[in-house]
Amino acid sequence: MKMLEMIHHCLVLLSFVGLFSVGEAFGFDFSGSRAWSSSKRSSCKQEGTIKMQTVTIIGSGAVGCYYGARLAEAGHEVTFQVRSGADVWRREGLRVASCLGDITLARPAVVERAAAPADWAVVCLKTYALLEQGGRPARELIAPAVGPGTRILLIMNGLGVEAPVAEWFGPEKVFGGLAFICCNRKGPADVIHSDYGALDAGHFLDDPAELAAVAALFEGSKVELRPQACLTAARWGKLLWNIPFNGISVAMGGVRTDVIMTDPDLREMAYRVMLDVRDSGNLDLEAQGKDARIGMDKVDTMMELTDNMAPYKTSTMLDFVSGRPLELDFMFSTALARAKELGGEPKYMESLIRMVRAADRQKQQQNSTQS
Amino acid sequence: MKMLEMIHHCLVLLSFVGLFSVGEAFGFDFSGSRAWSSSKRSSCKQEGTIKMQTVTIIGSGAVGCYYGARLAEAGHEVTFQVRSGADVWRREGLRVASCLGDITLARPAVVERAAAPADWAVVCLKTYALLEQGGRPARELIAPAVGPGTRILLIMNGLGVEAPVAEWFGPEKVFGGLAFICCNRKGPADVIHSDYGALDAGHFLDDPAELAAVAALFEGSKVELRPQACLTAARWGKLLWNIPFNGISVAMGGVRTDVIMTDPDLREMAYRVMLDVRDSGNLDLEAQGKDARIGMDKVDTMMELTDNMAPYKTSTMLDFVSGRPLELDFMFSTALARAKELGGEPKYMESLIRMVRAADRQKQQQNSTQS
Repeated sequence: MKMLEMIHHCLVLLSFVGLFSVGEAFGFDFSGSRAWSSSKRSSCKQEGTIKMQTVTIIGSGAVGCYYGARLAEAGHEVTFQVRSGADVWRREGLRVASCLGDITLARPAVVERAAAPADWAVVCLKTYALLEQGGRPARELIAPAVGPGTRILLIMNGLGVEAPVAEWFGPEKVFGGLAFICCNRKGPADVIHSDYGALDAGHFLDDPAELAAVAALFEGSKVELRPQACLTAARWGKLLWNIPFNGISVAMGGVRTDVIMTDPDLREMAYRVMLDVRDSGNLDLEAQGKDARIGMDKVDTMMELTDNMAPYKTSTMLDFVSGRPLELDFMFSTALARAKELGGEPKYMESLIRMVRAADRQKQQQNSTQS
Repeated sequence: MKMLEMIHHCLVLLSFVGLFSVGEAFGFDFSGSRAWSSSKRSSCKQEGTIKMQTVTIIGSGAVGCYYGARLAEAGHEVTFQVRSGADVWRREGLRVASCLGDITLARPAVVERAAAPADWAVVCLKTYALLEQGGRPARELIAPAVGPGTRILLIMNGLGVEAPVAEWFGPEKVFGGLAFICCNRKGPADVIHSDYGALDAGHFLDDPAELAAVAALFEGSKVELRPQACLTAARWGKLLWNIPFNGISVAMGGVRTDVIMTDPDLREMAYRVMLDVRDSGNLDLEAQGKDARIGMDKVDTMMELTDNMAPYKTSTMLDFVSGRPLELDFMFSTALARAKELGGEPKYMESLIRMVRAADRQKQQQNSTQS
């Protein structure tokens, strides 16, 4: 048990570099993209024999395209399920211009609906899909790729995205992935990957054997897969950064991380919100009977990392400024609701989240008035 | 004692209609100006004999002009101390176009520096004057009007404005006034008074005999003077509204009260901030050994009043949107510091105030970049 706990701690620590939130249109201030050490990038491991798997990518935005292309490159049979633009894929192929080496798939397998279950369903949908009509859109998109033996990896934002999927298809099937990547899409099958690319992944039930399975999938690919012994700790660990920094960047009408770090009130607010997120995460871990805890060292590390970052525009901030919808529910509201459900009083976090949601509502109203 | 406590409660209750913050340029959305009943306005009492007093108005902005003109109208000998524009006053006189009846003082007494102490120094300065150079500007403006027998009434925003003045001139001399008025200035001696006009006033040491003195000053004038048995309770009672509503209106980049009341997150935030202000005020009252307390009924009344208000733009919001400096210190920071000094944890209030101060800093920076 002691040993497992140590592994937990190490893995949780590892997960903390996976800060950035990801979306179909990732949005990144490239001036800041070298802030984290490039040693985080995996080298290409191609020795040994890799067992070929069938993989269906569901949600073929920038993130889906990138990880799908890397898996194809490593020898897996990857099918991209797309809602629109299939003709472009078939005509022009998939292009990923990547800082870790370009990939071109001249004839990618593209479907509008998976014809059969795969070994892996890799889901990179926007989190709205889990909310609309009780999640029906997401469920209907995922279901065709899932059979009795299928594993489902959700590379999505926030806290709680696994729960509905676990309910639909069985908890033993479900994995969570936290992408630490800067990429965006120029066209339906045209992706630019500018920096990073590591993927933290954990199993919904924290089953160590299953953790080995997800590690095996990415073995031999150029993706640095960092297994997370405790998925809940990994998710909260990413929120530790996302809630204060994505939150404040939006609540302040669209400011960069350097503004937050140098304004005395915003800096203090970020710190206090981070402490609230930490306490909430630990409450959640305790309630779930997990051994992992988020230590104060993580909070200090986050502040230090952000101090050393070049000015960075959070993805939510870019979405906000452009008037695009924000993934507020799973990045903010779920965490707040969970903390309160467990008797927590994360008042700084709550204040910030209320201001963020209100700012989003104001923006949406302005948009609908203008259009 | 029981009786005194009851009086306290009644007076505190009375003070709660005194919601609006006041400044030289008050800023008001006139569409909302009829929300409070006009029964709050005093009728003109001119029967009986009024003992004539000498009064020096220090800070002759809209508020100073209005109350000074009303006192002159009631027969007092009023001198307006002005920093600039004295020639305009002398040439054109003072005009107050008022909903309670216009006043024209053809030959107002105008000085750049009071020649002798008055019975009353009525101070309507912006609160910055108390902060710059340890308050030297304010002290130098007030001092010429103050002699051994002078009483000083500070009609100014926020919490703690009396303390420095009490230190300079003696606490027994000092009164606090909370103006419930909508007025602004068109020119140096040209004021428009559009609505309300009552004045809550208390003595710095809560001396009941002194309370009678301030009531006597306004006796026979058109100003409804509402004596406040406990000045601290009156000041916090006004903050109960000002901190959440002026605060949120600024933090959200400039929104009206109706937006705050109809957005579920902002409404909840306003309510929680108000509870924090109430708790902080009660901590302060307790620490000062005062009997008065701010009850939950006041909070509910404030929410209800604001629900029934026509859309209103707070003065701080108008200052913010126009890029004018905000009176943040005494309206926000002093209250927060006081609450924390007393061991309070007003986290919603703190979160809001941090965002407001940061928003102001951003705005000032934008202004200095533009200019």
